[in-house]
Amino acid sequence: MTTLPAGLPVVVDRGAPGTLVAQISAQLQAAVAGGALRAGDRLPSSRDLAATLGVSRTVVTNAYARLFAEGWLEGRHGSGTYVAGVAALLPGPAARRARPPLGPPPAAGRPPGPGGPARPGRVDLEPGVVWAEGIEPASWRRAWRAAGARLPSRWPDPCGLPELRAEIAAYLRRSRGLAVSPAGVLVTQGVSGGLALLGQHLLAPGTRAGMEEPGYPAGRDVLRQAGAEIVPVRVDVHGVVPGDLPGGLALLYVTPAHQYPLGGRLPVARRQALIAWARATGAIIVEDDYDSEFRYDVGPLPALHSMDPGVIVYLGTASKVLAARFGLGWLVAPPPLVEALAELAPRVGGRVPEPVQHAVLALLRSGDLERHVRRMRLEYARRRAALIEGLAPVAAPGPGDRGEPRPPRLLGDTAGMHMVLALPGGYPAARLAEAAAAAGVVVYPLDRYYAGPPAMSGLVLGYGAATVPQIRQATAILAPLLARLP
Amino acid sequence: MTTLPAGLPVVVDRGAPGTLVAQISAQLQAAVAGGALRAGDRLPSSRDLAATLGVSRTVVTNAYARLFAEGWLEGRHGSGTYVAGVAALLPGPAARRARPPLGPPPAAGRPPGPGGPARPGRVDLEPGVVWAEGIEPASWRRAWRAAGARLPSRWPDPCGLPELRAEIAAYLRRSRGLAVSPAGVLVTQGVSGGLALLGQHLLAPGTRAGMEEPGYPAGRDVLRQAGAEIVPVRVDVHGVVPGDLPGGLALLYVTPAHQYPLGGRLPVARRQALIAWARATGAIIVEDDYDSEFRYDVGPLPALHSMDPGVIVYLGTASKVLAARFGLGWLVAPPPLVEALAELAPRVGGRVPEPVQHAVLALLRSGDLERHVRRMRLEYARRRAALIEGLAPVAAPGPGDRGEPRPPRLLGDTAGMHMVLALPGGYPAARLAEAAAAAGVVVYPLDRYYAGPPAMSGLVLGYGAATVPQIRQATAILAPLLARLP
Repeated sequence: MTTLPAGLPVVVDRGAPGTLVAQISAQLQAAVAGGALRAGDRLPSSRDLAATLGVSRTVVTNAYARLFAEGWLEGRHGSGTYVAGVAALLPGPAARRARPPLGPPPAAGRPPGPGGPARPGRVDLEPGVVWAEGIEPASWRRAWRAAGARLPSRWPDPCGLPELRAEIAAYLRRSRGLAVSPAGVLVTQGVSGGLALLGQHLLAPGTRAGMEEPGYPAGRDVLRQAGAEIVPVRVDVHGVVPGDLPGGLALLYVTPAHQYPLGGRLPVARRQALIAWARATGAIIVEDDYDSEFRYDVGPLPALHSMDPGVIVYLGTASKVLAARFGLGWLVAPPPLVEALAELAPRVGGRVPEPVQHAVLALLRSGDLERHVRRMRLEYARRRAALIEGLAPVAAPGPGDRGEPRPPRLLGDTAGMHMVLALPGGYPAARLAEAAAAAGVVVYPLDRYYAGPPAMSGLVLGYGAATVPQIRQATAILAPLLARLP
Repeated sequence: MTTLPAGLPVVVDRGAPGTLVAQISAQLQAAVAGGALRAGDRLPSSRDLAATLGVSRTVVTNAYARLFAEGWLEGRHGSGTYVAGVAALLPGPAARRARPPLGPPPAAGRPPGPGGPARPGRVDLEPGVVWAEGIEPASWRRAWRAAGARLPSRWPDPCGLPELRAEIAAYLRRSRGLAVSPAGVLVTQGVSGGLALLGQHLLAPGTRAGMEEPGYPAGRDVLRQAGAEIVPVRVDVHGVVPGDLPGGLALLYVTPAHQYPLGGRLPVARRQALIAWARATGAIIVEDDYDSEFRYDVGPLPALHSMDPGVIVYLGTASKVLAARFGLGWLVAPPPLVEALAELAPRVGGRVPEPVQHAVLALLRSGDLERHVRRMRLEYARRRAALIEGLAPVAAPGPGDRGEPRPPRLLGDTAGMHMVLALPGGYPAARLAEAAAAAGVVVYPLDRYYAGPPAMSGLVLGYGAATVPQIRQATAILAPLLARLP
């Protein structure tokens, strides 16, 4: 009945922790990682596996979708589901324990752009802007009331409030599956604060730091300020390309969950290649997980960090969840590195006032933060749908068949608060942006995310700051402009 | 009937601005400051004074409560209200009377900070630490409640909240005589945030920036990070020495109100020379006015900025007033420079979360911030007096007759929250610090404020984090050690 290889243990236990989807996908993933399933093996249909396991078909479909999204499986709807070619890249148990030295690395942050409050009637699709007023007023008030109930300390802990570090560790365990103790968490001034600390501590002047190209401009600035030589690292629609990594990097900044700005989700094989590369070269990988809270197709992917906490420093932020430039983030690293960075914190990378820490602590403890994330995920999903729908006549979502965009196409639409509209090669995005602005829609060319000459022409369309009706208004203006492209 | 000293003018005027409570408390405070009321004088009961003045008893009770909270009055319920021994505030001999600390005593279990505080019984005289728990809990709560009442913005103004900039401008007019419009105020992440912005905007890589020697180590780091070549500028007990300024400086960082750390107050002739120098060379002077709120001999000096706002950028901070690393400061500059710096703010120099801005706005608007400053000024004055008194047998305050310290002497005692104990030339301060630490007192050598070889030996004694009894305990240990110096 089932086409699972004989002896493959996939069982479900309704008394066990974790959803059925998580149980099934974890077991299948372990089977691939452990070699029980091999590249090219065909999996049973979702209907068959559901019947075998006694679960609903939706459960299996969702488990497959998750593994598909993570790159463990491949195939097309209707023609079967196969194990992807990732097994060969899996490191052996010995390599897993190799502990590379923490060499010099750089870090990056996220830039709020030059845009300003909208003129009435104008729609601004600035990326990186958050629907800050989406927070429930009552939970916001409670959080700051809690902050005001605690007097400030004479000696604020440079690692952050211990209670907050513990809550963040628990949050990352719940939401991202990170195995992290409170001692491995540093409270930072957002992603850029964490990057500045890493740059200062790990990068001697002139050290080479790899940054995704296109990538996060403010991150580049922060690492350059720390004295690093910024080396562009090629990115395609799936994310960073490990085979193209330049030599001599002490640090590599990546956004595997949702490449910024192209939106790729790094496939498992590339993740494994990155880890192997870091182990072999002694480089540190900085994983910026800036907006993994907002994922619209399947649950968020496991963080790269989980694959080898010894070579990955993980960065996250409340800025995408609460408000742009909110100024509180977290860095996950081995406790000795956290301690070393905290010693620099009074001078480098900014401060997080204690009341801000108490407020976020209150939002985490009460569950208000996660409730807010769920509400905003729904809201952003509606906006995303409106944007895709409005541009459907002129731009299909997703990369083309061969993995490269056939413009105009919408890239990176499955997560976050922006997508990239890829334009025909060489077409000047600025000209399109000018025409759109003249008609009342502010859009941002992809060019500014490149350190060197842009390899792709496009617009970065943010929907964090625009309502569904505004997005409809914007696409009604953009679609005819796009239809007239050469 | 009344026991007020004869001729003491306390009158109320229902037509005058200010509440009756404010009128009465201001007049009584003026009477103490002016000497019409003296330490130990008994005030009339609230019932009697209310009858005399024709106001409700609650009005008098509240006026007394305010003066009591601020330290002007003392006494117990039922046994009368007395003028406190506040002579430490006034020029002349130090007060002998001990006052209780404003906040709760240091908790035994307080988490160790960078200076490693509070093993029980140990006294930490770390400079730059603020008695953060001195804030009145009610005003702290009100401020953060106000912060929580406003939802965050999608596009936070990179210059800071307009209302806050206006309040800061008004505060600087009131407290420092600065003629500044709101457009000339930038809200920064403390002094270091302002310095980072200036460094990034004004200093091309390799540009020469003058820093006081000895001076503010974190300031040096920030400008160095911006790519500047740091050039030490000689300082004596009065402050920076304009005749010794090196050539080719694009920027000069100074602390004219209270040189950090030596404590000199820059004389007028040197101020004029600095201004003339800046005009002649085109250099920008950065005036860091970090703790001018706390001045014990005379009112704070006018800021250098007032002499020529065209060549001076003024920096101030709430970190000395509220809590160390509070992370909100201000920069005063010509509005076009403010605009240019604000454009960098999202990437450089850190962020000030909007709720923090709203909280400080509330503290300024309500007058709570200035009341807090006044109360803390009294408290710090008492600690200063205790420190001077305790060391009097071995170290006289003030520079020696010829303007240079004849050690051991106490320098810079007239302002702020620290003073410098100058030691005999070449004496290793670290050895003294070790002996003190072994006896339970943590003190900090002056060496770390020098970029180059220290020109003076000394200890920097902070009293922001130690209560009067703790300071007595510390001086009882330090004085014998000092008496044994060669």
